[in-house]
Amino acid sequence: MRPRRSREDFWIAQWTRALRSPRLAGLRHGPGHDCAVLAPPSGGMDLVLKTDAVVEGVHFLGSTPAPLVGRKAIARPLSDLAAAGATPRAALVTTGCPGKKSATRLQAVYRGLARAARRWNISIVGGETVRTRQLLLSVSLLGTVPRGQSPHRGGARPGHLVFVTGKLGGSWPLRHLTFNPRLKEGQWLARKNFPSAVMDLSDGLGADLPRLARMSRVGFRLHLQKLPLAPGADVRQALSQGEDYELLFTVPRNKAARLRKTWPFTTRLTEIGVCLPSRSGFQTGGLALQGYDHLR
Amino acid sequence: MRPRRSREDFWIAQWTRALRSPRLAGLRHGPGHDCAVLAPPSGGMDLVLKTDAVVEGVHFLGSTPAPLVGRKAIARPLSDLAAAGATPRAALVTTGCPGKKSATRLQAVYRGLARAARRWNISIVGGETVRTRQLLLSVSLLGTVPRGQSPHRGGARPGHLVFVTGKLGGSWPLRHLTFNPRLKEGQWLARKNFPSAVMDLSDGLGADLPRLARMSRVGFRLHLQKLPLAPGADVRQALSQGEDYELLFTVPRNKAARLRKTWPFTTRLTEIGVCLPSRSGFQTGGLALQGYDHLR
Repeated sequence: MRPRRSREDFWIAQWTRALRSPRLAGLRHGPGHDCAVLAPPSGGMDLVLKTDAVVEGVHFLGSTPAPLVGRKAIARPLSDLAAAGATPRAALVTTGCPGKKSATRLQAVYRGLARAARRWNISIVGGETVRTRQLLLSVSLLGTVPRGQSPHRGGARPGHLVFVTGKLGGSWPLRHLTFNPRLKEGQWLARKNFPSAVMDLSDGLGADLPRLARMSRVGFRLHLQKLPLAPGADVRQALSQGEDYELLFTVPRNKAARLRKTWPFTTRLTEIGVCLPSRSGFQTGGLALQGYDHLR
Repeated sequence: MRPRRSREDFWIAQWTRALRSPRLAGLRHGPGHDCAVLAPPSGGMDLVLKTDAVVEGVHFLGSTPAPLVGRKAIARPLSDLAAAGATPRAALVTTGCPGKKSATRLQAVYRGLARAARRWNISIVGGETVRTRQLLLSVSLLGTVPRGQSPHRGGARPGHLVFVTGKLGGSWPLRHLTFNPRLKEGQWLARKNFPSAVMDLSDGLGADLPRLARMSRVGFRLHLQKLPLAPGADVRQALSQGEDYELLFTVPRNKAARLRKTWPFTTRLTEIGVCLPSRSGFQTGGLALQGYDHLR
């Protein structure tokens, strides 16, 4: 007697057919086994880990084209790897699926996920499907970065200048689905050792800059008139809408001229403020600092 | 002006206060930064990756004691690492939280998570909080295993004997929350090179043994009368209830006597069947093979 596969096995086979991602060099075994097993990176590299999720009704809508949902699920944690100066290698994908009705939509989500994995050369080495009330994808990424070279949020000092890539605000309805994580820019910044601190902007400058400042134990003055605004966005939106997925970073003053001069990208680079001693607080010329709050 | 922290930052600080997990040797930076950055394992080790989730209403109930929810969120992927013969090192935790009402419960969940992390010496190096309609935790684990030593599901051959650890069935209402992943057993089996194929039993023998057989391209005969039944469980429950979190593995016949003789654990070890050529199918003496199907 050979029983029919369960509905779960059937759908997992359907979905994963869409998941032809690049094969990772050194992958010993991957999807279909209990764990992914892979050779460690060659010498001189650190490992970089990040997890991030997209949830229906929060990060995308029922009306969002399904392939863009899959793309965003990969692109969000990639933006964090960009801040860390890392190169992505492998991904684990957990899918929360509300049942049969979502199965067709999920296949299209997986096509978008697979396309994104190919584009950024990421091997999807494992995953999981669970039953949830709303569609969601949780993606964990493994990347690598040259040893000791990854910047973090904690190294800004008073006097360091604050920079941002790209433009801020107006991410909905479209850019939050189609943005390009600043991987090349982040890798270049880390390799050249420019940033004293760096993070990616996901909840809006108004929420994220205070986080960087707290981790570095500094205050700051923000030059609101210098904020690079996306078309149609005003300063308030640039501070609070979130989902910009740009890099926010600080640079010692004596490196700033060289940064501007050698910046090799067409991506816009803007100086938007300066770090102050902690006691000076967060100076914005009176505008309230508030980003997107997931639990408000 | 120094704005109040967002509600999200406030709760994340509350929760993570409960998350004092062991610090990983070689961790360069962890929680509070965009990514976790860590030194690679010392030479001779492979990396092992696994992600798994627990969802309210599926893997636990509203009435489940919160610390046991946190414990299970870690123990589930640990069971997969056990099958891979791996030693867990680091975890990423994504929490889906339905809002303010769940915040107190989540603190208790995190206490259980932290206790489990200490118990199994796992460093929680990063995570994420998102808004969801039901409480859920998705845990990704990074482990290590001596190079080339991790078994998988694909090596069973006709004639190999099928073994299982522990007892099957009756996992609800309690054991699915309090089980001990078979880490020591899995590490020992891999080190001694006993298994030709191995997996952990999460969806029930009736679903999982066919998966192992398909990956190995073999059939099997299951000795139903030999199944090690948990107190109060019958054969049907042992096949189909799931959440046993025991190890299912195959061993070449010429190694079986030595396995039985040298097995150093008090954990029960039972031979429950034999692998057959693929054309022989799945022989169970007529009982339907069906495990737990998440999407039925």
